[in-house]
Amino acid sequence: MKIAILPGDGIGTEIVAEAVKVLHALDLKFESETALVGGAAYEAHGHPLPEATLKLAKEADAVLFGAVGDWKYDKLERALRPEQAILGLRKNLGLFANFRPAICYEELVGASSLKPELIAGLDILIIRELTGDIYFGQPRGRRTAVDGHFPGSEEAFDTMRYSRPEVERIARVAFEAARKRSKRVTSVDKANVLETFQFWKDIVTEVGKEYPDVELDHMYVDNAAMQLVKAPKKFDVVVTGNMFGDILSDEAAMLTGSIGMLPSASLNASNQGLYEPSHGSAPDIAGKGIANPLATILSAAMMLRFSLNQAAAADRIESAVKAVLASGLRTADIHSSGTTKVGTREMGDAVVAAI
Amino acid sequence: MKIAILPGDGIGTEIVAEAVKVLHALDLKFESETALVGGAAYEAHGHPLPEATLKLAKEADAVLFGAVGDWKYDKLERALRPEQAILGLRKNLGLFANFRPAICYEELVGASSLKPELIAGLDILIIRELTGDIYFGQPRGRRTAVDGHFPGSEEAFDTMRYSRPEVERIARVAFEAARKRSKRVTSVDKANVLETFQFWKDIVTEVGKEYPDVELDHMYVDNAAMQLVKAPKKFDVVVTGNMFGDILSDEAAMLTGSIGMLPSASLNASNQGLYEPSHGSAPDIAGKGIANPLATILSAAMMLRFSLNQAAAADRIESAVKAVLASGLRTADIHSSGTTKVGTREMGDAVVAAI
Ligand SMILES: CC(C)[C@H](C(=O)O)[C@@H](O)C(=O)O
Ligand SMILES: CC(C)[C@H](C(=O)O)[C@@H](O)C(=O)O
Repeated sequence: MKIAILPGDGIGTEIVAEAVKVLHALDLKFESETALVGGAAYEAHGHPLPEATLKLAKEADAVLFGAVGDWKYDKLERALRPEQAILGLRKNLGLFANFRPAICYEELVGASSLKPELIAGLDILIIRELTGDIYFGQPRGRRTAVDGHFPGSEEAFDTMRYSRPEVERIARVAFEAARKRSKRVTSVDKANVLETFQFWKDIVTEVGKEYPDVELDHMYVDNAAMQLVKAPKKFDVVVTGNMFGDILSDEAAMLTGSIGMLPSASLNASNQGLYEPSHGSAPDIAGKGIANPLATILSAAMMLRFSLNQAAAADRIESAVKAVLASGLRTADIHSSGTTKVGTREMGDAVVAAI
Repeated sequence: MKIAILPGDGIGTEIVAEAVKVLHALDLKFESETALVGGAAYEAHGHPLPEATLKLAKEADAVLFGAVGDWKYDKLERALRPEQAILGLRKNLGLFANFRPAICYEELVGASSLKPELIAGLDILIIRELTGDIYFGQPRGRRTAVDGHFPGSEEAFDTMRYSRPEVERIARVAFEAARKRSKRVTSVDKANVLETFQFWKDIVTEVGKEYPDVELDHMYVDNAAMQLVKAPKKFDVVVTGNMFGDILSDEAAMLTGSIGMLPSASLNASNQGLYEPSHGSAPDIAGKGIANPLATILSAAMMLRFSLNQAAAADRIESAVKAVLASGLRTADIHSSGTTKVGTREMGDAVVAAI
């Protein structure tokens, strides 16, 4: 087993260090190698995703990723900005299936913006397609408008697109995931306006016929954004495109109020994967030793389960995290009165001790 | 003053009838004419936006619109489905500026999914561009993929686009609106991924220089979807594109828990406008006399203010609605213990009485 460790920027280095500590506590045999990515890589090598980092990621069975980005890179041309590293890794490794669980832990119900009865017990799995859609569609750029309301004026444009096999494979991922859960899939589209998402809806419906045991429904993206607020627990597995998934998975994560707890996985067709917390690089608290490492630690658990075939080890991490929460330890982001506030390192140590 | 009245489908006819009753109670002089739109127009004339309806709308100073749509039209080809009428009206009348207030009325705080302290006093104005973006961009359709992950396979595609004058004019609308409020604008984009929204961000920044008294900030759409849940009151005026605005304005509306209260306005360059409730046609409760007419009544108030230059009359409607709420009358959607449940018609009568 070979793991590429890419801590990145901001709190990335601190939280990844704790996840690595937890991995070592499991007595598994694995090789690992660390490399720069994002702003850190740009500063050292002039590019957010240097050749060597990409090569390391490609050769590994899995990538454990921290976070990238900082306001100070905002003025760089787009191709050099930290987040291009994420897009580059997704594209080059073909990581088309993004798993974004939105889980509300019992002890953290109070951290949510929502009333407790609406959020307690929430357990949604958003499956976002990650290598298609308007993120990578060509052509894109600037040109002189030939039609529209102001022909002759300057315009910018992008192309949204999905091909049949792209939709088929992400639909299968969703139906398979639903089979291991409550056997319900909601496919989110905008078929009433977009050709791409009428096509999406047609294909998901077709693929759904191969899974007669799974209940499929369809929802427009604007309605999904509403229903997530109104009654989030009505959802189970949600599958959608790259752009809508970007928005809805973040909305769902924030509903829990504890985004510092939420891991994510991005997989390709051979189960090679990139694992990262759902939150960002939080440059405002970087270096202070107060960031919550649990989302990254739980991402390492997903990595063991999905890419490294070590489900038992993954279970051990997840149980340890639950035990630590039950013991009352909290980083600042999820702290409330009656619980014990700890720093990044103490939280990592507590998970190791619970293992 | 000439008003085109387009009740549409589902609860549309019931709620528009109440708004018309309220308009008549104001002793204004106006001409009005009613026409079919949406599914109702399709059934009578084979098209959701018949020529005569479009002509009437074009010749009027304002359109009072109910709602369109019903599951039973789902199997029609897209061009004949009810919602095409809305898209057609927007496009043909050039209604580029959509005003979507998300207001939480004091008496209705309890209806929200959010904890009272997060939502009480909410007053956001989302300004959505309504005639550009991926809604109308060409080319769109199906074809054989030439690049991407599966060249040679069938694909569907759409074009996202904005021209400079389109972004400039909606930015000005937002800055002008902010001047009448708290002088803050948040522009929502996805400049880190999309050419269209880097262009959008650049132009909004440029236009912002003409409004040095208004504070401008920029937020990515995924972050905006999160911040709306976390701390909605931090927003004041939000300006964004057609697609992101569709999603965020519905999310923001649902945060209030009382979408049956929220009006909307869609204006063109000469202040001709279409006014409609933010909610849909609710076919499940159509004909039962229980729908909330207040969003439509408040849309009529927006119509008087924005298109008909009757601000005093608009104020009278808005005060009457507040008085009715204060008196404890509630339709089923916003009813709670200790208040009096009334039907659609009684609610309209109460507003008339309060005028
Ligand atoms: C950083 C950005 C390009 C990225 C995305 O839009 O996919 C991020 O928001 C995410 O969701 O991982
Ligand atoms: C019905 C549909 C085409 C429309 C849209 O997407 O704009 C609706 O959702 C809205 O927001 O008015």
